[in-house]
Amino acid sequence: MNTKPKFAVIGGGSWATAIAKMLCVNLDEIAWYMRNQSAIEHLKAYKHNPNYLSSVEFDTNKLKLTSDINEAVAYADYLIFAIPSAFLSAELEKLTVSLQDKVIFSAIKGIVPETFLIVGEHFNKKFDIPFENIGVITGPCHAEEVALERLSYLTIACGDSSKAKVMAKYLAGNYIKTKISDDIIGTEYAAMLKNIYAIAAGIAHGLGYGDNFQSVIMSNAIREMKKFIRKVHKMKRNINNSAYLGDLLVTGYSVFSRNRMFGNMIGKGYTVQAAMMEMSMVAEGYYAVKSAYKLNQEYKAKTPIIDAVYEILYEGKDAKKTFKKLTEKLD
Amino acid sequence: MNTKPKFAVIGGGSWATAIAKMLCVNLDEIAWYMRNQSAIEHLKAYKHNPNYLSSVEFDTNKLKLTSDINEAVAYADYLIFAIPSAFLSAELEKLTVSLQDKVIFSAIKGIVPETFLIVGEHFNKKFDIPFENIGVITGPCHAEEVALERLSYLTIACGDSSKAKVMAKYLAGNYIKTKISDDIIGTEYAAMLKNIYAIAAGIAHGLGYGDNFQSVIMSNAIREMKKFIRKVHKMKRNINNSAYLGDLLVTGYSVFSRNRMFGNMIGKGYTVQAAMMEMSMVAEGYYAVKSAYKLNQEYKAKTPIIDAVYEILYEGKDAKKTFKKLTEKLD
Repeated sequence: MNTKPKFAVIGGGSWATAIAKMLCVNLDEIAWYMRNQSAIEHLKAYKHNPNYLSSVEFDTNKLKLTSDINEAVAYADYLIFAIPSAFLSAELEKLTVSLQDKVIFSAIKGIVPETFLIVGEHFNKKFDIPFENIGVITGPCHAEEVALERLSYLTIACGDSSKAKVMAKYLAGNYIKTKISDDIIGTEYAAMLKNIYAIAAGIAHGLGYGDNFQSVIMSNAIREMKKFIRKVHKMKRNINNSAYLGDLLVTGYSVFSRNRMFGNMIGKGYTVQAAMMEMSMVAEGYYAVKSAYKLNQEYKAKTPIIDAVYEILYEGKDAKKTFKKLTEKLD
Repeated sequence: MNTKPKFAVIGGGSWATAIAKMLCVNLDEIAWYMRNQSAIEHLKAYKHNPNYLSSVEFDTNKLKLTSDINEAVAYADYLIFAIPSAFLSAELEKLTVSLQDKVIFSAIKGIVPETFLIVGEHFNKKFDIPFENIGVITGPCHAEEVALERLSYLTIACGDSSKAKVMAKYLAGNYIKTKISDDIIGTEYAAMLKNIYAIAAGIAHGLGYGDNFQSVIMSNAIREMKKFIRKVHKMKRNINNSAYLGDLLVTGYSVFSRNRMFGNMIGKGYTVQAAMMEMSMVAEGYYAVKSAYKLNQEYKAKTPIIDAVYEILYEGKDAKKTFKKLTEKLD
């Protein structure tokens, strides 16, 4: 028992809750940081997260719950960050414990808004963590289906495959299958880019385009994603693997995706501000598209879908006209 | 006006009706064969097909309607077959007019049950039509969305690209974009195989698998399709183009797909016979999977999804157990 590595989940949302549930199948103890102390009290008293996946019952004897991020980081060998990318910097500023000997996995599917880096790159560049200590946990996986114990497949990428294997082993279970990958950059970019394409799918739906066009958007999106990621990090990868295409599809076809919902509102004529207020949260793809667009000024991949979403969200272009032009560029 | 080629649509179903609608945008006259004389009378009197896409109004002055297939074939330079593959042989037996100087396009997405050939191969092998006179019209395209004039993209493949261009030109319109392809075998196999994957998606849904798994099935399906088609006809093709991936997605994600519905009933425990009776029609994928499975005895591509569907539909294997095994082979 003592030889098992120690894990800490950082975050109190639905994806963090799903990951905590997976780990508890295989471990006798995990640390779990959430900043909301009252959620911790509720979890201790009622054995479920009050705000997310509240149907999931935890054996609270297994949970070292804390609202002090340093306590969780100090405890663990493996850290899993599962908080919205917009809050990552603020949480990391609280750190007094060193990250140097930690293995850091990102379950965040987005861009750090302050640095416009994907999370793995952010830890590498801003915290000097070597890529062999950085990993990514990626879907296709709606947290809600983990709560229902519906079969889901995760891809675990890490610069050091032995660490990917460790993470894969402790996440796997009856309804979770895991595979490992060495494409830490590509899988994380795919997870980030898919949110942009989900916004695009939402805009199309909001504008009244139908299922035929949705499938054309997805078919073009995966080709565009392949070109973009190849520019970022060229290596042999099959873009149709679950971590890329599967993740795109589960988000792009989901009516529950926040990104798709956000796009839908834009397509129906909401301003960006109004759509954000209505949702009372920011869709990850909103940051992702700015970053992807800026990066692509350098890479110059052909990315008509990213360009269209960027122009609508950041340059105030009319969604209907912009998509009409976009349809001429797709095939 | 006289230099325009003459077109005949063969079939009275929803896809035939959608194609007739597209052609009428660009032509002053088309021939349209449907075997049901009372449907013809209704169309003449009320300007719409009584049974399919009945919201579509036709300028009946443009329609040379006939219940005599020979009349339609004799009239036209370009024939578009859009009838269920199960009825093709019976219709072709009625022919007294020669097909030798005709350009034959298939809008049938399936296998001819008597010969276990895709339609293009059937015309080539059984009627000696050279491949430069054979073409395929493929989606992603639900006929229902054509009725609603929602933007759709078609791929037109033909052994002779000039003929593909002619067909593409006369189908294109405000809400129909067309592109041409030289992959006549690959596009037709894709259109056929996707129905098998739609059955698989339906079975999974019927068994209670969720959206996470659906995306894993689709991600595996497109990889499987690529391997299979490469064995049938090796050439350079991007399997993520609309005609392959797009067509797979529009069917695999559609709750209206007959194939998906059929699979769903199987997953819920209906026998094959009961599911067919309930639907009062045969799903194209039912024939397709037998043919694909048999072909693959020779090709030996790794096709776990096709194998699983075949075993359930033709070998009486238990759907739940077979899919449980299948989940071990996917990633």
